[in-house]
Amino acid sequence: MTATSGGRAEAGAGEFVAIVPAGGAGTRLWPLSRAVRPKFLLDLTGAGRSLLQQTVDRLTPLTGIGGVLVVTGGAHAAAVAEQLPELAPGDLLAEPSPRDSAAAIGLAAAVAERRRPGVVVGSFAADHVVHDVATFHAAVREAVATARAGYVVTIGIEPDRPATAFGYIKTGEPLGVEGAPSAHAVRSFVEKPDAATAVAYLAEGGYRWNAGMFVARADVLLGELAAHRPELHAGIVKLADAWDTPDRDTVLEAVWPTLEKVAIDYAVAEPAAAAGRVAVVPASFGWDDVGDFAALATLLPADAEVRVLGDGAHVLSRESSGVAVPGHGRLLAVLGLDDVVVVDTPDAVLVTTRARAQDVKSVVEALRALGRSDLL
Amino acid sequence: MTATSGGRAEAGAGEFVAIVPAGGAGTRLWPLSRAVRPKFLLDLTGAGRSLLQQTVDRLTPLTGIGGVLVVTGGAHAAAVAEQLPELAPGDLLAEPSPRDSAAAIGLAAAVAERRRPGVVVGSFAADHVVHDVATFHAAVREAVATARAGYVVTIGIEPDRPATAFGYIKTGEPLGVEGAPSAHAVRSFVEKPDAATAVAYLAEGGYRWNAGMFVARADVLLGELAAHRPELHAGIVKLADAWDTPDRDTVLEAVWPTLEKVAIDYAVAEPAAAAGRVAVVPASFGWDDVGDFAALATLLPADAEVRVLGDGAHVLSRESSGVAVPGHGRLLAVLGLDDVVVVDTPDAVLVTTRARAQDVKSVVEALRALGRSDLL
Repeated sequence: MTATSGGRAEAGAGEFVAIVPAGGAGTRLWPLSRAVRPKFLLDLTGAGRSLLQQTVDRLTPLTGIGGVLVVTGGAHAAAVAEQLPELAPGDLLAEPSPRDSAAAIGLAAAVAERRRPGVVVGSFAADHVVHDVATFHAAVREAVATARAGYVVTIGIEPDRPATAFGYIKTGEPLGVEGAPSAHAVRSFVEKPDAATAVAYLAEGGYRWNAGMFVARADVLLGELAAHRPELHAGIVKLADAWDTPDRDTVLEAVWPTLEKVAIDYAVAEPAAAAGRVAVVPASFGWDDVGDFAALATLLPADAEVRVLGDGAHVLSRESSGVAVPGHGRLLAVLGLDDVVVVDTPDAVLVTTRARAQDVKSVVEALRALGRSDLL
Repeated sequence: MTATSGGRAEAGAGEFVAIVPAGGAGTRLWPLSRAVRPKFLLDLTGAGRSLLQQTVDRLTPLTGIGGVLVVTGGAHAAAVAEQLPELAPGDLLAEPSPRDSAAAIGLAAAVAERRRPGVVVGSFAADHVVHDVATFHAAVREAVATARAGYVVTIGIEPDRPATAFGYIKTGEPLGVEGAPSAHAVRSFVEKPDAATAVAYLAEGGYRWNAGMFVARADVLLGELAAHRPELHAGIVKLADAWDTPDRDTVLEAVWPTLEKVAIDYAVAEPAAAAGRVAVVPASFGWDDVGDFAALATLLPADAEVRVLGDGAHVLSRESSGVAVPGHGRLLAVLGLDDVVVVDTPDAVLVTTRARAQDVKSVVEALRALGRSDLL
């Protein structure tokens, strides 16, 4: 155990910066999700706000105004800026090319550390859903307190089913951090299990879903990167030194393409866990990564046999169940189909079943093979 | 037996006039079929010609040019004229309001009789499909020969399955009409049977589907009308007398609304059959009334698991079977559904199964109940 210094009970505004990596195509949500309009830009809950907007809405009470950094691909920077008019231009980090999550989150952490030395940062994907925001806030506050004590902290979701779509976190002993009564050591991260293994995890207990939420002091995170990926760390430091200067673009152009492509899980979380420096705050706040239309269906009001994302007046269902996504005013009529998925967009209509929701990816692959990039 | 006079072997051009009643909404084919664009105006076989156009194409070799009269509702007269530019204005009979088939066919027969006394007329619905046109022609020629002998003649389709969607004709003894070796007496017309009765009909033999094809000398047909529906006959005679004169519209306006609404089956065929004056020419030429999407599917090329009416490039199916009707260039993607029906139109998308094809009517009824006349 090498965690350093005691923590405070609660992070105040300015002491916590949220990093929101906004990436991922969400091909299992085609034809809603497209290359130019990926999942995080979509309102998939009928809330009137995109997943990205909801993510920022959820984090701002923890960070205060101006405490969110969004990292996204250059192709989506304009759309992100449009959806988040409150985001200062310097808080939108546009990647010239995809270099995976360690580079993206590392750069954001280094920029935050330059601006506010000693700050705690937390990384939260732009395309997940959280139902109970108050419980989420309480968990993040515990994670921030644990991070102040020197840990790299992850929030571990209490499993409510033997899911095979998520990695798991194996929980160790309680840490006794002040202000973070739930914090435990992480024994290990484990890959997405098969169905039997997932059932065994639930039966054994002590396993949490890895929702990819990492909280740490920026200097701790960068220290881990320096220890495990020194070249990547050196590049990130160069970029961060130039970020809030006129040299940003020049240095970005020179350095970014040289950065190692590696996930933060491999570059930081797993080696740190092996060294006993990772903590988990278990929590249960209704989390979902909305990975496919079956997951989407569970988020929608269950006031009709066919759940509707959009205007229910545009769906006429008879003796059917499933989920329908009408688009642009056209009527969707569904008759005599169970567990069906119907998605209408201006240039493509998808008809499948909830049971086949994961295989929607294969439709996208088929379209790519056919050269239909206009539909991707 | 009261049939009069001998027949000739073959009808020449000018001796036979085809009457094509173009009506019926085809609500089981919604959303393809609409009130303003009913089934007979649609190309439902991918032939590049509507069912109406194919019907006229099929009949013209029997009648010669100018030998087809089309009777349709006033609302569809313009669309019919557009699809049939070869049709003389006087050969398009637009009904001011629907008065059922006895009035429509009776008027056309009376107009044909005024123009060509002694002519044989035949009535053929505008929205049926015939696969083997040569065999159809041969059957009609036999029917014309039998009609010249004084009979009201129907063409009876050899059943290839115990269909419950059609009425049946019970066949009697051979008639021995010259030029019509297949002609038999009709013992009776029977209503659409239930499934068990339909199976019994097939097992017993001697039953034919009633495809609503009637062939008779116009004077014989009008004589039957005069005998069984004298008021309707009197009205039709008034109309026919005025038809090819400047008084047509005035008389139409005065007389048409007074005509009895009755099907030609009840007004003519059944009483004539009871009196032994109806003959049937059995035939087998691949006939279908394309009553629903299940029937439509059987008409389409079976070169893919999902049969396509339209451009196959607009359908992407994976591990699915059924029928897809793409519209207007949008892609239809179908994944993991058996026997599905997907129909895309600019303002409505239908998703159902072939097994529920008959119930599409209930969707149309639901839309009517919702006041969505824009979609009917």
